[in-house]
Amino acid sequence: MTTIALDAMGGDHAPHSEVAGAILAARELGVRVLLVGQQQAVKEELARHAREADGLPLEIVHAPEVITMRDSPLAAYKKKKGSSAHVAARLVREGQADALVSAGNTGAVMAVAHFTLGTLAAVDRPALAASFPTSKGKVSVMLDVGANVDSKPAHLEQFAVMGEVYYRVIFGTRRPRVALLSIGEEEMKGNELTREAHNRLKKKALNFAGNVEGRDVFAGNVDVIVCDGFIGNVALKISEGLVEYFSTALRSALNKDLRTKMGALLSRPAFKGFKETLDYSEYGGAPLLGVRGITVIGHGRSNPNAIKNAIRVAAELARARVNEKIEAELTPRYTAVRETAAH
Amino acid sequence: MTTIALDAMGGDHAPHSEVAGAILAARELGVRVLLVGQQQAVKEELARHAREADGLPLEIVHAPEVITMRDSPLAAYKKKKGSSAHVAARLVREGQADALVSAGNTGAVMAVAHFTLGTLAAVDRPALAASFPTSKGKVSVMLDVGANVDSKPAHLEQFAVMGEVYYRVIFGTRRPRVALLSIGEEEMKGNELTREAHNRLKKKALNFAGNVEGRDVFAGNVDVIVCDGFIGNVALKISEGLVEYFSTALRSALNKDLRTKMGALLSRPAFKGFKETLDYSEYGGAPLLGVRGITVIGHGRSNPNAIKNAIRVAAELARARVNEKIEAELTPRYTAVRETAAH
Repeated sequence: MTTIALDAMGGDHAPHSEVAGAILAARELGVRVLLVGQQQAVKEELARHAREADGLPLEIVHAPEVITMRDSPLAAYKKKKGSSAHVAARLVREGQADALVSAGNTGAVMAVAHFTLGTLAAVDRPALAASFPTSKGKVSVMLDVGANVDSKPAHLEQFAVMGEVYYRVIFGTRRPRVALLSIGEEEMKGNELTREAHNRLKKKALNFAGNVEGRDVFAGNVDVIVCDGFIGNVALKISEGLVEYFSTALRSALNKDLRTKMGALLSRPAFKGFKETLDYSEYGGAPLLGVRGITVIGHGRSNPNAIKNAIRVAAELARARVNEKIEAELTPRYTAVRETAAH
Repeated sequence: MTTIALDAMGGDHAPHSEVAGAILAARELGVRVLLVGQQQAVKEELARHAREADGLPLEIVHAPEVITMRDSPLAAYKKKKGSSAHVAARLVREGQADALVSAGNTGAVMAVAHFTLGTLAAVDRPALAASFPTSKGKVSVMLDVGANVDSKPAHLEQFAVMGEVYYRVIFGTRRPRVALLSIGEEEMKGNELTREAHNRLKKKALNFAGNVEGRDVFAGNVDVIVCDGFIGNVALKISEGLVEYFSTALRSALNKDLRTKMGALLSRPAFKGFKETLDYSEYGGAPLLGVRGITVIGHGRSNPNAIKNAIRVAAELARARVNEKIEAELTPRYTAVRETAAH
């Protein structure tokens, strides 16, 4: 049975969302969940769900400390070794769990996972992969969205391979289309980094679609979009900001007068459907690819459904042995060459 | 009377939008517009509006060539010296017009303006400034959104000053809040470029608000947001892509069934108001700051109203002598220091 070490103290609604999400996951996905956190708090929350949790493979693992959203990543890593994130990461390192899931402070969880688990032998830097909805219905995945900055072309090359393997495993696409985020489709457009990365990517055994622009993220013509973590993080946050702006502006527009209010009431099911396509909770969190151990980071605002989906993604990545696949893709293959003796 | 050299062949709907926009501008803003383009085409379009145009200060200046959206910027600059953009830029260089306005191929117009007009003495690289709507109603301005890539800290410093002067002149804010786009608010977050730029910006006589994240672009807490042109271009295109995605997804959600369709009908005025807040045509185009001559670039899809607003911004920048202000801000001031003789 796949075992998930869940940071039960991570998200904004911890441990409520975490415990409820773990119950959903254990029941629906057939996984075992280790609820890592302050024993008393987790126990009390679990007691509230005693009936639903009855007989499910859920266990509490005590962790005395809690990392907050205000802790700086490095300080949290160094000074809170007893945190739920640390304990969960150690369970993965020691083979007691197959994957780590947390909706906690993203920077801190990345630091804890990175330094506790280390990186895969063939990977220089891990990358955080975020999912975006597209007009074609399917999801596009962008990486890196903030694990690193000042990437070199070789790093983007590794991100491309890791993103391709991840997309294949999670979305079942046989040959995902991989693209490079730039500011023009032509090969020579972009900056020093993208020009060199383009050059390298087109030589790789990938389904490389060339450069795409920011507007292509939501178009759905490509599956995996590769960029430096500074760019990807700005892209992600800009999108989140615009979604918030949209919701506020639309709500205030619909409250204009009685007519528009009535209209809004009638169209409510449509707005609900619309909001669902934007709902991060459906996407199952962002995997930190390249660390030696599956790590999936959920949004701080994760509800139980988002936690369940993050656990689902983590379990699928573990079952598919995604890290072995990444290692295999990134390790140069030596073709046996028969030396013919020269006469 | 302020004279605008308008590239009448630039946008997707040229010369229709351009001629109609010039008429609106001449009538409402009291500016003189030189319609630069293929004489016959512009003349015919003007004839269609003979009554509205009657008596207005509009003149046609012939330019035999047209730059298309498919032309590469450098090739367009080098090989189409007879284009409407070239002729309009030369009118500005020779003092026959106070500003250049074009809704043409952005890259090509930037190249033509940059190389025909040159940069201000104190400016190393021009920057394109784009406007974003915010939840607070006012606009935030981001620069650079694509005039350059691989900026150095000193360039971001100049962008900050140019953006501040621009915001002051156009939006009347006495001390605009200037921020640096990064991936965390703390000074040490970000990449090599932003850390060094932060260090320089906090020493300047600016109302510097520190780092902001992508989500702050639409929040309205800061006025001017400074970044490298690669980042800014990705941010702009991501936003455009998401707006398109939103419109499509919302429309299809509202078409779901009879109830939601009726709701949509009733809420139509609200959607109209909502769309207007997103309407680039209200924002008056993007100025290319730092070139020796006012240059404002409109969206390719500009309608007559967008052209009028671009002309309005260009005229306001010219009347406010924005370039003299930028030069003054960027030129080191020598404070007279009285040397006291040491006894």
